[in-house]
Amino acid sequence: MFLTRSEYDRGVSTFSPEGRLFQVEYSLEAIKLGSTAVGIKTKDGVILGVEKRANSKLMESGSINKIEEIEKHIGCAFSGLTADARMMIDHARVEATNHAFNYDEPTSVETLTQSVCDLALRFGESGEGQERVMSRPFGVALLIAGYDERLGPQLYHTEPTGTFYMYDAKAIGSGSEGAQAELQQKYYSNMTMAEAEILLLKVLKQVMEEKLEAKNVQLAKVTKEGFQLYTTEELEKLVADLPADVDQDELAELS
Amino acid sequence: MFLTRSEYDRGVSTFSPEGRLFQVEYSLEAIKLGSTAVGIKTKDGVILGVEKRANSKLMESGSINKIEEIEKHIGCAFSGLTADARMMIDHARVEATNHAFNYDEPTSVETLTQSVCDLALRFGESGEGQERVMSRPFGVALLIAGYDERLGPQLYHTEPTGTFYMYDAKAIGSGSEGAQAELQQKYYSNMTMAEAEILLLKVLKQVMEEKLEAKNVQLAKVTKEGFQLYTTEELEKLVADLPADVDQDELAELS
Amino acid sequence: MFLTRSEYDRGVSTFSPEGRLFQVEYSLEAIKLGSTAVGIKTKDGVILGVEKRANSKLMESGSINKIEEIEKHIGCAFSGLTADARMMIDHARVEATNHAFNYDEPTSVETLTQSVCDLALRFGESGEGQERVMSRPFGVALLIAGYDERLGPQLYHTEPTGTFYMYDAKAIGSGSEGAQAELQQKYYSNMTMAEAEILLLKVLKQVMEEKLEAKNVQLAKVTKEGFQLYTTEELEKLVADLPADVDQDELAELS
Amino acid sequence: MFLTRSEYDRGVSTFSPEGRLFQVEYSLEAIKLGSTAVGIKTKDGVILGVEKRANSKLMESGSINKIEEIEKHIGCAFSGLTADARMMIDHARVEATNHAFNYDEPTSVETLTQSVCDLALRFGESGEGQERVMSRPFGVALLIAGYDERLGPQLYHTEPTGTFYMYDAKAIGSGSEGAQAELQQKYYSNMTMAEAEILLLKVLKQVMEEKLEAKNVQLAKVTKEGFQLYTTEELEKLVADLPADVDQDELAELS
Amino acid sequence: MFLTRSEYDRGVSTFSPEGRLFQVEYSLEAIKLGSTAVGIKTKDGVILGVEKRANSKLMESGSINKIEEIEKHIGCAFSGLTADARMMIDHARVEATNHAFNYDEPTSVETLTQSVCDLALRFGESGEGQERVMSRPFGVALLIAGYDERLGPQLYHTEPTGTFYMYDAKAIGSGSEGAQAELQQKYYSNMTMAEAEILLLKVLKQVMEEKLEAKNVQLAKVTKEGFQLYTTEELEKLVADLPADVDQDELAELS
Amino acid sequence: MFLTRSEYDRGVSTFSPEGRLFQVEYSLEAIKLGSTAVGIKTKDGVILGVEKRANSKLMESGSINKIEEIEKHIGCAFSGLTADARMMIDHARVEATNHAFNYDEPTSVETLTQSVCDLALRFGESGEGQERVMSRPFGVALLIAGYDERLGPQLYHTEPTGTFYMYDAKAIGSGSEGAQAELQQKYYSNMTMAEAEILLLKVLKQVMEEKLEAKNVQLAKVTKEGFQLYTTEELEKLVADLPADVDQDELAELS
Amino acid sequence: MFLTRSEYDRGVSTFSPEGRLFQVEYSLEAIKLGSTAVGIKTKDGVILGVEKRANSKLMESGSINKIEEIEKHIGCAFSGLTADARMMIDHARVEATNHAFNYDEPTSVETLTQSVCDLALRFGESGEGQERVMSRPFGVALLIAGYDERLGPQLYHTEPTGTFYMYDAKAIGSGSEGAQAELQQKYYSNMTMAEAEILLLKVLKQVMEEKLEAKNVQLAKVTKEGFQLYTTEELEKLVADLPADVDQDELAELS
Repeated sequence: MFLTRSEYDRGVSTFSPEGRLFQVEYSLEAIKLGSTAVGIKTKDGVILGVEKRANSKLMESGSINKIEEIEKHIGCAFSGLTADARMMIDHARVEATNHAFNYDEPTSVETLTQSVCDLALRFGESGEGQERVMSRPFGVALLIAGYDERLGPQLYHTEPTGTFYMYDAKAIGSGSEGAQAELQQKYYSNMTMAEAEILLLKVLKQVMEEKLEAKNVQLAKVTKEGFQLYTTEELEKLVADLPADVDQDELAELS
Repeated sequence: MFLTRSEYDRGVSTFSPEGRLFQVEYSLEAIKLGSTAVGIKTKDGVILGVEKRANSKLMESGSINKIEEIEKHIGCAFSGLTADARMMIDHARVEATNHAFNYDEPTSVETLTQSVCDLALRFGESGEGQERVMSRPFGVALLIAGYDERLGPQLYHTEPTGTFYMYDAKAIGSGSEGAQAELQQKYYSNMTMAEAEILLLKVLKQVMEEKLEAKNVQLAKVTKEGFQLYTTEELEKLVADLPADVDQDELAELS
Repeated sequence: MFLTRSEYDRGVSTFSPEGRLFQVEYSLEAIKLGSTAVGIKTKDGVILGVEKRANSKLMESGSINKIEEIEKHIGCAFSGLTADARMMIDHARVEATNHAFNYDEPTSVETLTQSVCDLALRFGESGEGQERVMSRPFGVALLIAGYDERLGPQLYHTEPTGTFYMYDAKAIGSGSEGAQAELQQKYYSNMTMAEAEILLLKVLKQVMEEKLEAKNVQLAKVTKEGFQLYTTEELEKLVADLPADVDQDELAELS
Repeated sequence: MFLTRSEYDRGVSTFSPEGRLFQVEYSLEAIKLGSTAVGIKTKDGVILGVEKRANSKLMESGSINKIEEIEKHIGCAFSGLTADARMMIDHARVEATNHAFNYDEPTSVETLTQSVCDLALRFGESGEGQERVMSRPFGVALLIAGYDERLGPQLYHTEPTGTFYMYDAKAIGSGSEGAQAELQQKYYSNMTMAEAEILLLKVLKQVMEEKLEAKNVQLAKVTKEGFQLYTTEELEKLVADLPADVDQDELAELS
Repeated sequence: MFLTRSEYDRGVSTFSPEGRLFQVEYSLEAIKLGSTAVGIKTKDGVILGVEKRANSKLMESGSINKIEEIEKHIGCAFSGLTADARMMIDHARVEATNHAFNYDEPTSVETLTQSVCDLALRFGESGEGQERVMSRPFGVALLIAGYDERLGPQLYHTEPTGTFYMYDAKAIGSGSEGAQAELQQKYYSNMTMAEAEILLLKVLKQVMEEKLEAKNVQLAKVTKEGFQLYTTEELEKLVADLPADVDQDELAELS
Repeated sequence: MFLTRSEYDRGVSTFSPEGRLFQVEYSLEAIKLGSTAVGIKTKDGVILGVEKRANSKLMESGSINKIEEIEKHIGCAFSGLTADARMMIDHARVEATNHAFNYDEPTSVETLTQSVCDLALRFGESGEGQERVMSRPFGVALLIAGYDERLGPQLYHTEPTGTFYMYDAKAIGSGSEGAQAELQQKYYSNMTMAEAEILLLKVLKQVMEEKLEAKNVQLAKVTKEGFQLYTTEELEKLVADLPADVDQDELAELS
Repeated sequence: MFLTRSEYDRGVSTFSPEGRLFQVEYSLEAIKLGSTAVGIKTKDGVILGVEKRANSKLMESGSINKIEEIEKHIGCAFSGLTADARMMIDHARVEATNHAFNYDEPTSVETLTQSVCDLALRFGESGEGQERVMSRPFGVALLIAGYDERLGPQLYHTEPTGTFYMYDAKAIGSGSEGAQAELQQKYYSNMTMAEAEILLLKVLKQVMEEKLEAKNVQLAKVTKEGFQLYTTEELEKLVADLPADVDQDELAELS
């Protein structure tokens, strides 16, 4: 079976006899190798959280950034190849600045998300003016969180295929399966930001290999006030206050 | 047999000894993996309907758009790779705008359909000015519905091969076989729009894996008044009023 | 034997040790998969006829066009890949218009035929200004019918190899073998247009899988008055009046 | 033996370990599949003759042209791929016109022959301004006949390798082996044009599969008066007058 | 296992079924073949140290430079392909000069590091104005040391993948595994520059095959005063003063 | 052994594990398939001689040119692919004319030889302005003979590798091995032109398959007076006067 | 073992799983096939010496140049592919001239060496203005000798990898292993130029297959006075005066 598949799965633009594009599917696997990222939307804003994996005690965990601001009201968390993510985020920032300059208004979250997906689809293309385009599918997924003046909080999930969907709560990366199941069970639409903070940390805690600490997670929120990373102090307080009530039944259920 | 075929089926432009282009045929398979879309033409307009598949309770089904407006009197439903469809629809919108600007009249539905098919045929081409062209056949089929001032309602079906045909009623996607058989049995040319709505929902209901609900279908109509998506309220009313009379004999016949 | 051949038959421009170009030969096979088209020349004009294959009762057979006008006195029927044919016909129309504009006289049928064949030979070429060129041989054959002011009626047959020849009567497509044999037996050079109409329909009738009806054939004629498609009424009358005298001996002979 | 060869024989520019370029050698085979063409030089002019193969009674043999005028005093016969020949002859005509325009004198036969060979060598090259160049060796050989004001009658033979040589009498194509042997035996340098006509027809007669008739041969001569195709009447007279004296001994010898 | 892998590991941009990019991973191996380089950050500055391997007594060890100044306050040590490093350092110098020229302030260490990583990601790209880009991943890792006016001493590690992280102390190259373990055990954040010098030399001493001497190591420091290479005299003094107290227990532990 | 080699010998720029470039080595074999060419230098000038192989009695041997004038004081003989030689000689003529035009003095023989070798090295390159460059090594070797005002007679040998050396006497082509051995035995540096003529003809006579005649050799000399081809009369006289004293001992020795 | 390697060793830019670039390593083998070259630095200048291999008594050894002047104070010897060396030396000369023109001072030896290595790294690149770049690694190594006004005598060794190192004495080419061992034993840093001459000739004598003679070696020196080739007379005197004292013990040791 695998032998047959291998005839079709190295060309970035080759359909298999069943109509599949394997190289794009494999890029989705690259994301599953990345650290877990979670986003939760409430009526007041969106919270993004990621696991930070330092491969050495001497690495400064502060230099691991898996959540980035795109413009004042939009930020994103990512999972997968870090360098690919940086390329996408650079692209998004340019698009946001161009939009603001051309129309004198902030870009909508959906427009920005779509421009990121357009870039994702353009791999394999030859030169496009100043901008760099890749010769393979991007190996990264994004959770884009924003606050639209008109539509309020927004949470989008983008894939290497160039498709995107809106979510109430979404997990990506190596622990995404367990995390998404947990989110599905615990999420309710009228959560407060404080409740969302706790849910997000609980979900991360469950899927992380190491013990949850302020120094191995990164959190940010996007509200009416804009994008804001949590300070170390805020993180430490949150982790300290985190109720230890994850009952074993649920865990058993999930495993 | 398959071994022999595999010698010819990876080059996007390689004929097999029997004169077939396998990569284009495989792209047709990509469409069969997509969700079902149905179009029905009546003397007053065309109705488009698609199945929406949310892969998580937390995904906002409102962000799944498989029916899009192209210009005021033309819309389309699609089945297959979402990102490919977006590229084709963007192209169609630009063509429609250019036509309106150059000739000061709306583009005809056939002209627009042909321009989409011209794009489909251009895969593998190098840069064409500003526009992006793919290095493989497009993995998407479209149902283009429009209302011509001169010709009235029109329903076209486009394929990755770049061919298109006019239909009275047409189904594409994973459930297309059963759906098309049902359409062939139940369609009659002097249907009213209301009758077409019911037929379309019945056809979708039969081929959908999940229970038909307002939130997992999308409907639109194109009439003299233009393209219009059904609101959630309209959908809920339609689903609620849907007669439960699909007799089991027919189903048995189809399976 | 086949194994050896397969070493040479995928490169579009690779000679085999016997001096053959297999990809071009395979494109001829694509034509044999197409529906049958027939052309008959008389001293007053040329008649073109094609079989229309609707794959569904709901497909509007009127949207299947396998005969197209190129300019006022020239038209063509084709067999093979529809989208390839459209590209060739578009090219022919531009050439005809350019000729008329530059020299203020209609292009001769031979000149137009040659320009179509020049395009056929250009596959694999890189950009040629505005026009699109394919990366594989065209998978289509044309019957070009015209009325030259100087030379009278003309019937040309073009192949994917870029060669063309003049014929008195010619059949192409899936039923071409039987059809050509029939033409060879029944054709005589001083036919009237009416006699040619009947011969053409008889030939199509023999090779079509479905019963010959007005809605599954398309006819056109090119005379001193120019290119003209037969209306549905004309077709219905012709089919109704068609003598049922195909004697079984002949059929036996052919099979 | 063949297996080893096949490692080197598909790249158009790959030397084998023995220093051979197989793709160019295979293109010579394409010529051996073509119909026979013969050229004979006398002190008054050159005669060219070709066999015409009509694959159907309904094909108009008048549309098979294997001898073409290049300019007033130069013509050529060819054997091999018809479309390739047309490209070469178009190139030769442009060169001849350019020469006449630039230097106000007719181009010499050798200069023209060389320009055709330069084109033959250029396969695989990228764009050369307006002109089209092939991605494989040309599959055609030419017999170029001309009348130089200074040098008198000239007969050149060009090959896909880009080499050319002058001949007194030369045969190419499928029957070239037998034809060349016959020419070698019967040619004498002080032939008259009338004697050359008869020799040429006798040679063609021997190698043609079908019976020699006015409608399946094409003849042309290039003399001080210029290039001239034989009319059907002239051909019919020549064929009728052809002495039937081909003695069987010679034929036996050749077979 | 390896056989399967080898299907995916030669394309520079091909994902394996598990989502890995093998060519980039293999470039990491090229670094492991290079000589060891170590960087240690203190509150007053950063020290860089490398092993110099002279393959002949007649090679002038002074011509082996594995530590280079980038601009006044930034330098780097590298491990891997020397020529690749030179290309990256040239790029970094141009970026630093451009930044100083455009903004009239020194570039920050992070900005410079990011520009080097952007170059790393651009392999396989076609022409980018004046600058040269490689057709394969860069086979080199860098330790970039700098002194920011605002942030003080900084130590970054860049990889061929285009990712970079900040470290307190980091070792790369053939002896990196043992060296990093040693650093992790002995490093403390409030080291003085003098203590860091001793730790760095001890670590190098442990992983070097040859006896540590002034002529086979290269040291540099970046402090408030800027980048400065150690002179031979300084090196000789340091090596001479190096306490011989590496206790065997530790060594045993590490091996 | 050969199997291993075949892994490396088709890429025009691929080194084998032993550091060899096989495609260039194979192009040397193409030369060994060519007819023999010989050059002999004396203090008064250089003589070039080649064997002419007519493959048919009807081919005019006068049209076989294997010795060509490059400019007034430089000529060359070649062995290998005729069309490749023509391309090189055209290049040399342009270079010579350019030099004369730019510096108002004849180009030196060495400069011209070097420019030919530069062209040889450029195979595989993309467009170089107006001039044509090949996609494979040139399959031809040249003997370039010239008379420098300053340096007197000069004889150079160029290879497809782009290297060239000066010789007193040199043979290339199919009979080069025997011919070079003979030259080595019989050449002496103070030969007269008349003695060189005889030696050259004797050497050719030995290696030619056919009997040496005036019509199957070509001779030229380059002296203070310039390049000059021998007339048929001169050749006939030389051949007639050729002493028949080739003693059998020598032949035995060589075979 | 070799089979596995062969999967990675033909792509010029493909890393093997161990991080090696085989094509570059193979190009180093091409150098080992070249004739031996030796360089020795003294406090007064640098001496370069090469073995000249004439493959025929009739080849003029004076036309074998393996030592070339680059500019007044810089010269180089090379080993490997002659044509590649010529390309590199041409590049170096242009760089030296440009430097002198732009800065009105001679280029330093290191700057020139670096520019040659930059070219070595650029293989596989597309057009770079006027200059020619290769599609494979350069198959040549250089010994660059120069006299810097500021730094005195300098000897650099460049490799196809683009790396370069400074040496006191260095041997390259087929006999480099034995030669370098001999240099290592006999070299002392305060040699006079006369002593270096003798050492160099002794080293060459040992590794040459033929007997050392004035006509099969080439010597040059670079001193304060500039680059200077030794005349035949100087060489003859040196060879004649060469002490015959190579004791057999050393030779035994080396073999």
